[in-house]
Amino acid sequence: MYPELDTPALVIDLDAVRANIDEMAEAAARHGVRLRPHIKTHKMPELARMQLDAGAGGITCAKLGEAEVMADAGIDDILLAFPLWGEPKLRRFAALRERARVRVSLDSPEVAAGLGRLGGPPVEVLVEVDTGQHRLGRPPGRPTADLVAEIAAIPGVEVVGLLTLAGHAYHARTATELAETARREGEDLVATAELCARDGIELREISVGSTPTARHAAGVAGVTEIRPGTYIFNDTAMMRLGVATEETAAARVLTTVIGRPIPERAVFDAGTKCLASDGTGTPGWIRAAGLPYVHMDFLNEEHGVALLEAGHHDDLPVGTRAQLIPSHACAAVNNFDLAYGVEGGRVTTELRVAARGAVR
Amino acid sequence: MYPELDTPALVIDLDAVRANIDEMAEAAARHGVRLRPHIKTHKMPELARMQLDAGAGGITCAKLGEAEVMADAGIDDILLAFPLWGEPKLRRFAALRERARVRVSLDSPEVAAGLGRLGGPPVEVLVEVDTGQHRLGRPPGRPTADLVAEIAAIPGVEVVGLLTLAGHAYHARTATELAETARREGEDLVATAELCARDGIELREISVGSTPTARHAAGVAGVTEIRPGTYIFNDTAMMRLGVATEETAAARVLTTVIGRPIPERAVFDAGTKCLASDGTGTPGWIRAAGLPYVHMDFLNEEHGVALLEAGHHDDLPVGTRAQLIPSHACAAVNNFDLAYGVEGGRVTTELRVAARGAVR
Repeated sequence: MYPELDTPALVIDLDAVRANIDEMAEAAARHGVRLRPHIKTHKMPELARMQLDAGAGGITCAKLGEAEVMADAGIDDILLAFPLWGEPKLRRFAALRERARVRVSLDSPEVAAGLGRLGGPPVEVLVEVDTGQHRLGRPPGRPTADLVAEIAAIPGVEVVGLLTLAGHAYHARTATELAETARREGEDLVATAELCARDGIELREISVGSTPTARHAAGVAGVTEIRPGTYIFNDTAMMRLGVATEETAAARVLTTVIGRPIPERAVFDAGTKCLASDGTGTPGWIRAAGLPYVHMDFLNEEHGVALLEAGHHDDLPVGTRAQLIPSHACAAVNNFDLAYGVEGGRVTTELRVAARGAVR
Repeated sequence: MYPELDTPALVIDLDAVRANIDEMAEAAARHGVRLRPHIKTHKMPELARMQLDAGAGGITCAKLGEAEVMADAGIDDILLAFPLWGEPKLRRFAALRERARVRVSLDSPEVAAGLGRLGGPPVEVLVEVDTGQHRLGRPPGRPTADLVAEIAAIPGVEVVGLLTLAGHAYHARTATELAETARREGEDLVATAELCARDGIELREISVGSTPTARHAAGVAGVTEIRPGTYIFNDTAMMRLGVATEETAAARVLTTVIGRPIPERAVFDAGTKCLASDGTGTPGWIRAAGLPYVHMDFLNEEHGVALLEAGHHDDLPVGTRAQLIPSHACAAVNNFDLAYGVEGGRVTTELRVAARGAVR
């Protein structure tokens, strides 16, 4: 299994990546909405370019540092889905605007006022709405409409739309619950925009949709944009939610068994410093591809400690390789400077995780 | 608060670091054992040098890549506490041995045989023992003594001692339970070494002790070496175990409030990509230094979402800075390429996290 690579290593199945990109692009096209994928999952300009070539209309970044990396690669339509605060970032944002169209999301007049003081053409902003995750934003309806009116009155910014992340969808227990959360995500924003219109503020963007909800939310009348990220790689969290399979899980950590202390235990050379701690303790949060009898017990920083089902206690001798599927692909990828692209079971390219760690 | 730094940023209180280094060095000296600190916490040659200058007798690394970074900085006495497997790593290990004294821990004849085939002077190995964490190693007593005999018979390796990590100590609920775990950690290995001696194999190293247990385990007769790592920075996990305080928590993430969507909620610009997901859900797993009324609710990748106690709903306006203490310092540090050393409340130096991500 990839003998040219030492372990642990991040391998990206580019065949699966292409299929994942196409599937989401088709879902967006079918509903006539813009797909603006979040690049926080892969952090690689090459893959952002593949998404754009397949029909994406711009990209989403969380942090300014990610946006700068993508702009360096020539990407010129970026939604910065994070409130910008402070002079150093505002200076960098002003420079970024010189070479790309950049919109920003925010949820406060304070952040809007900072952007408004930049000068130049008005900064296009989307107001973040709390559709149930309880992170940023006010609830839909009147609380958000009032905030939109307040921000719209600030010189130098133009409120172009509403944005939400239905992060609570990750906790959905059934497909029905997931679909319902997605529908609400879209409908709540559309209804709020109608309220804003009655207040005299016409909003032209309704931006919703994470990987679990995007395919549903895209179908809500009035939604203009979906921003899924994880779909390009998927992970066990997406598998658990029923929106991915082992075959579409494209990012894996190639690892080696370095200890078999007792027959029922195998220890891999990859722990949280490869796979991250996200999802720890959730049953099946780390899976060994093609090895359903391997059950991860716990991770230390450099060890993955797995239990083997009865009947497999002679399997996986020291030196055996396996591919571990992370619980959260975005977090796992952020642990690596370099990934290896594989196609047809062979390593075909090296991919730099160019925006890894770009948290500022 | 550190206006010269943009946020989020990793700040290291070097005054606290010096005190932490001295305190553990004194504990080791008092008991006459070697302190061989694990550098996985800081990953910085400068801090390893400070530990050595304060009396440490060599360092511990997990991965070969970490050891290479430390050897590049001139550190020449290294315990590699991880089984080495595969030709690429064995070649690198052979090169590393040319410039440093390197011991390796392992728990299998397979790994020992690989090392034994290297040639040159015998490779000094420590056999890992499972004192209750159930990761690598066999249980103490006869199972380990038999393994030691098997490995000692392999040409090219010399078994010099026993090693364990009492990782289960992290789950201790009381100081008494912690002390008892530490005592057992030491005594189990000493008793096993006596069994080996009766088998005709004299072992000269008994290597134990993580940060929670090191001060206790150092006092067990027969223990020769302790390997704590986290003590240099500490974290909320160490605070919860009663072996650290907010004052000795030296690694913090400097962050800014970027949203105050409702009076009881403040959102920081640092999430799991700064603080890691380790400890998620444990009460108080992330603490805001000096702000006891701030209770972290959840982290996303780039957001830290906190709830504020009644009476503080007007505090922390957008733009306020705070220092967040991570649950697991080692994991948080691994998210950053650069840290800022602070002394007396001022930034005095930049520290490169030179061995960040060195998982191979």
